[in-house]
Amino acid sequence: MSLSLSLSQLPSRVRLIDVGPRDGLQNEKTPVPAEVKIGLVQRLQDAGLQEIEVTSFVSPKWVPQMADNAQVMAGIQRQPGVHYSVLTPNLQGYQASLASQPDEIVVFGAASEAFSQKNINCSIAESIERFAPVVQAALAAGIRVRAAMSCTVGCPYEGDIAPERVAYLAGLLKQIGVQRVDVADTIGVGTPRKVQAAIEATLRHYPIDDISGHFHDTYGQALSNTLAALELGVWNFQSSVAGLGGCPYAKGATGNVATEDVVYMLHGMGIDTGIDLDKLIDAGSYISDFLGRQSHSRVAVAMLNRRAG
Amino acid sequence: MSLSLSLSQLPSRVRLIDVGPRDGLQNEKTPVPAEVKIGLVQRLQDAGLQEIEVTSFVSPKWVPQMADNAQVMAGIQRQPGVHYSVLTPNLQGYQASLASQPDEIVVFGAASEAFSQKNINCSIAESIERFAPVVQAALAAGIRVRAAMSCTVGCPYEGDIAPERVAYLAGLLKQIGVQRVDVADTIGVGTPRKVQAAIEATLRHYPIDDISGHFHDTYGQALSNTLAALELGVWNFQSSVAGLGGCPYAKGATGNVATEDVVYMLHGMGIDTGIDLDKLIDAGSYISDFLGRQSHSRVAVAMLNRRAG
Repeated sequence: MSLSLSLSQLPSRVRLIDVGPRDGLQNEKTPVPAEVKIGLVQRLQDAGLQEIEVTSFVSPKWVPQMADNAQVMAGIQRQPGVHYSVLTPNLQGYQASLASQPDEIVVFGAASEAFSQKNINCSIAESIERFAPVVQAALAAGIRVRAAMSCTVGCPYEGDIAPERVAYLAGLLKQIGVQRVDVADTIGVGTPRKVQAAIEATLRHYPIDDISGHFHDTYGQALSNTLAALELGVWNFQSSVAGLGGCPYAKGATGNVATEDVVYMLHGMGIDTGIDLDKLIDAGSYISDFLGRQSHSRVAVAMLNRRAG
Repeated sequence: MSLSLSLSQLPSRVRLIDVGPRDGLQNEKTPVPAEVKIGLVQRLQDAGLQEIEVTSFVSPKWVPQMADNAQVMAGIQRQPGVHYSVLTPNLQGYQASLASQPDEIVVFGAASEAFSQKNINCSIAESIERFAPVVQAALAAGIRVRAAMSCTVGCPYEGDIAPERVAYLAGLLKQIGVQRVDVADTIGVGTPRKVQAAIEATLRHYPIDDISGHFHDTYGQALSNTLAALELGVWNFQSSVAGLGGCPYAKGATGNVATEDVVYMLHGMGIDTGIDLDKLIDAGSYISDFLGRQSHSRVAVAMLNRRAG
């Protein structure tokens, strides 16, 4: 734990990757039309988000919510300086995504063997082999490649995940050329020291600038874990506007940490994000209103109460 | 900020003061009978809580929810090693509490002049003068005295509160003999660095062992703030089972941080609390079921989902 910094030495700037349109909406039961997704992406970039995970190119048989991927990518008004990423779990998906000109593709792997087997029916090593040609093709085409590492702290089937398993996965991803990785607490069971251990394991293969934190708020720990990651120097984080999303494979897992809550904490600590919190609240209201439910963001709820005066 | 410790140097043990029966239930609209309050206290001590804020001795005209104070104090089955505290805002309340033999009495003061005026119709200095004879009487009777310092980070009327104001309040409380103080973020607007600044201001007058953190979760920041306080060495915290409570004077303020959520984080970090989380979840279910609503604790919701299997 010798890498820990005190609060006085935290990064002065953080970049947030909003995964709401993809990771968030892919688990929604309410069908969300392409124009609403496009409207959400527009509002996120208007609020200052510089990275947005827009959709996934995956079989509509598996994820019907993302069947409109090409339509959404074609409909967004791209803004200079904003990066748009898409999930491409296989070569077919990757090829289908090319016409949409993503700035970055995302593959994934689990730090838990049991999760890998149950989620994608193969071992961790096999899953990485499958991704290798996707990564190779993307890099050859000049497209950035990120990998989401799931279950880096805990697994719904195996329980606690040893940092060694995270290092193993990170090493495999590095070998096939993945440029940066997300340390994801997919089921939100992590606490600060465990999250730091997963990040430290990842640091054996990736520099701090290429690591992002992705924390779910199932047990209310996501912001503490964000703070713990900041103390290691992590300055890239994933979050989801209005706390959209969850994990269909992880029983009891609720949403991603809300972007609004992360931004509130960071701004309160004097850390720059380039995001306008009021506009972000509006983006969250837009999608929450469409879904007909209250936002999962505590900051959004508190600030909307205030606005209502 | 030079006092910050890294995560490797946090306290190894934390003591939690559950304020649910008093601070939590005093703002409930649903009338809670004395036997339910007694049942809640029983379940909290069975779960391993060593400090419980049971009730307040205040005019029933102001806080009708606590009119059964003597009945509740008489009904609880005291357990050796557990401390039972009561709020006594004036000499009349203090005298009324004596028959109940509290282990500790609690007075309060605000770090915000505007809040003090709106809450108790007097200046901060005047409020401390009023508490002086209460403190004096309690100390003479061998009863411990704690003070809750409200609005130490932000105020619903004044906005940000300067650490100087916290130091001023802490100094006044020290002068009248108050033995330990709570640094409360009454409206939950604090973030880690601001909370650390409020604690550091308090450290000018009180040693770390006599300072407790009291964070509301209105903006979802309470656990991050707890982590930030731990990094300064704070090892006493207040929390409320099931996240009961709020602040009737602070518009939009929702509950205290849930004891379950704090315990989950601390245990996940290897920090001992002496609390059995499963029994604590049961205590939270007992009162949430009575109130007919879902717990505000994310840990309780997640663990009850799991139990339901």
